[in-house]
Amino acid sequence: MSPAEQNPLHNPVVAVVGATGAVGTVMAQCLEERRFPLAALRLYASPRSAGRRLAFKGADIAVEALGERSFDGVDIALFAAGGAISRELAPLAVRRGTIVIDNSSTFRMAAEVPLVVPEINADAIRGHQGIIANPNCVAIIAATALWPLHRANRIRRVSMATYQAASGAGAAAMAELRSSTEAYLAERDYRQRVFPHPYAFNVFSHNTAIDPATGYNGEETKVISETRKIFGDDALRVTATCIRVPVLRAHCIALDVECERPIAPAAVREILAAAPGVRLVDDAEGNHFPMPNEASGQGDVLVGRIRQDVSDPSGRSVALFVAGDQLLKGAALNAVQIAEHLVGKR
Amino acid sequence: MSPAEQNPLHNPVVAVVGATGAVGTVMAQCLEERRFPLAALRLYASPRSAGRRLAFKGADIAVEALGERSFDGVDIALFAAGGAISRELAPLAVRRGTIVIDNSSTFRMAAEVPLVVPEINADAIRGHQGIIANPNCVAIIAATALWPLHRANRIRRVSMATYQAASGAGAAAMAELRSSTEAYLAERDYRQRVFPHPYAFNVFSHNTAIDPATGYNGEETKVISETRKIFGDDALRVTATCIRVPVLRAHCIALDVECERPIAPAAVREILAAAPGVRLVDDAEGNHFPMPNEASGQGDVLVGRIRQDVSDPSGRSVALFVAGDQLLKGAALNAVQIAEHLVGKR
Repeated sequence: MSPAEQNPLHNPVVAVVGATGAVGTVMAQCLEERRFPLAALRLYASPRSAGRRLAFKGADIAVEALGERSFDGVDIALFAAGGAISRELAPLAVRRGTIVIDNSSTFRMAAEVPLVVPEINADAIRGHQGIIANPNCVAIIAATALWPLHRANRIRRVSMATYQAASGAGAAAMAELRSSTEAYLAERDYRQRVFPHPYAFNVFSHNTAIDPATGYNGEETKVISETRKIFGDDALRVTATCIRVPVLRAHCIALDVECERPIAPAAVREILAAAPGVRLVDDAEGNHFPMPNEASGQGDVLVGRIRQDVSDPSGRSVALFVAGDQLLKGAALNAVQIAEHLVGKR
Repeated sequence: MSPAEQNPLHNPVVAVVGATGAVGTVMAQCLEERRFPLAALRLYASPRSAGRRLAFKGADIAVEALGERSFDGVDIALFAAGGAISRELAPLAVRRGTIVIDNSSTFRMAAEVPLVVPEINADAIRGHQGIIANPNCVAIIAATALWPLHRANRIRRVSMATYQAASGAGAAAMAELRSSTEAYLAERDYRQRVFPHPYAFNVFSHNTAIDPATGYNGEETKVISETRKIFGDDALRVTATCIRVPVLRAHCIALDVECERPIAPAAVREILAAAPGVRLVDDAEGNHFPMPNEASGQGDVLVGRIRQDVSDPSGRSVALFVAGDQLLKGAALNAVQIAEHLVGKR
């Protein structure tokens, strides 16, 4: 037997929970495209979506209504149906022996739950007690680009300003961006339902609640605490301003990074060129840098605009601009990569 | 005679150069809406646009082709026709006795040219030698919001990440954003002409050339050096990442600000609530903060998301998010405000 075949999770039964959502759909696509070794795929969604059929490896799989018995015989369940479903059903699935990879924020900061970006802390997977958390999309995309620098020259402080796509709020949010933009161009009224503010040709602060104690919104608080947990470095100082922009499915982040020792842009480029999950897009002459339209559909995080931060005369700070597909590396792909580690595929 | 009537520029003849462009059009609107006291308005544009008629105070004014004799009898000329026209014709106009308020970047950093945001350094206008420069749009919008803080508690360092609208690149860029978005939604091909990258539902690094020595692009370099000049503080450390987002006419900026002494968000709010040219939009409970759709058409710079920067444990840093109309305060309005100071209207 090969090492993979010796793995107790060899050829598992896999379930996707929230299979008809923006992330769930892409999870199934990733499983297929990456030839994830599985005995069977079960697709679960709300009763409203049950009965729909989704293509997988040339066959059609019927979407089933999610329920308490859904996890019988399931080895690995990828949850992407929101926090309430995860809170209710992930512990139940674990009790029945399923390993849950959860895309919601519910368990991310629990001490016993590994929070994993495989390029960074795949080792943490081994310590799981049934649930492994998939981090926030901005945290994954930023961390994937920053980790190689952190290893080479410890990052002391990082400031992020985000340019976040509709997809982070689900398929309905993506549809709202399209429909409201169509209405705007046709000078028709449009009443938004997903977001509290008009989205067509507009930008707004992330629609999670503001913590009155700090002034940071829920998204920013996640990015800050999750980046520290993924890096295993509680001393890392992080700030973030999370902003929604009218883009469909890839996030960008402007990053100011302060390292422990002086660091040159050339060194950053060399480190990132060799880093897993990262692709340099840093063509100053051609004015070609990371963009959502090129990040969409790409597993890698695009990194560019690498330069010394001129506002720090010590030479310890650099600026970067990154773009990553929110649905792929920011959610579905990262979850499937975690599953690959579980089955010993990587 | 009133003090205004004693002003040698009382009731001047005013010209707008580039009168059919995005900024020039709004300059004429500002002159009308703010009841700018003038004896006559002359509108100049390229020969292509000559003969068009623009409404002004209930009458139609014919647009004339710009030429060397255009400034005869003109007291104040507002230039908004790009750097090449300013370089060629502003010195000529000055020699004929016209005072030029120039919206291009051509003369901004010249030592003898005042670079003015009236709320900040209106006094500098008096020292002009014929040309007064209107700053870069991002620099104006950021500086208007930051200056009251700088006066209360000197700013040592500021980092800006921008969310810039199409209007900064002119009317053709605004049209390209609309047309390319229409094409995207209809799944039609679109070949962009103004920008080097697709704009529909996309975000890209500002399309000015990158300085190979620093890695900063032309827009960022302007923002950095102009902010210092407007504040009259060469020790101010500034960095900027300038990004174009699919928005029509208002810019946003995420600001990280480090002051000399500890500063509390409540103090920032109090200072900004009393500041000229600024309007607080900082409703944490209602998740209502500065947005381009609400900044558009507003003369004030909207400021919100005011919070302590948790990545600076010294308590000296705060974060803000601002939005300002690129065509108004970022360009036309600021130029007209400078003209108002010239004629003693303010």
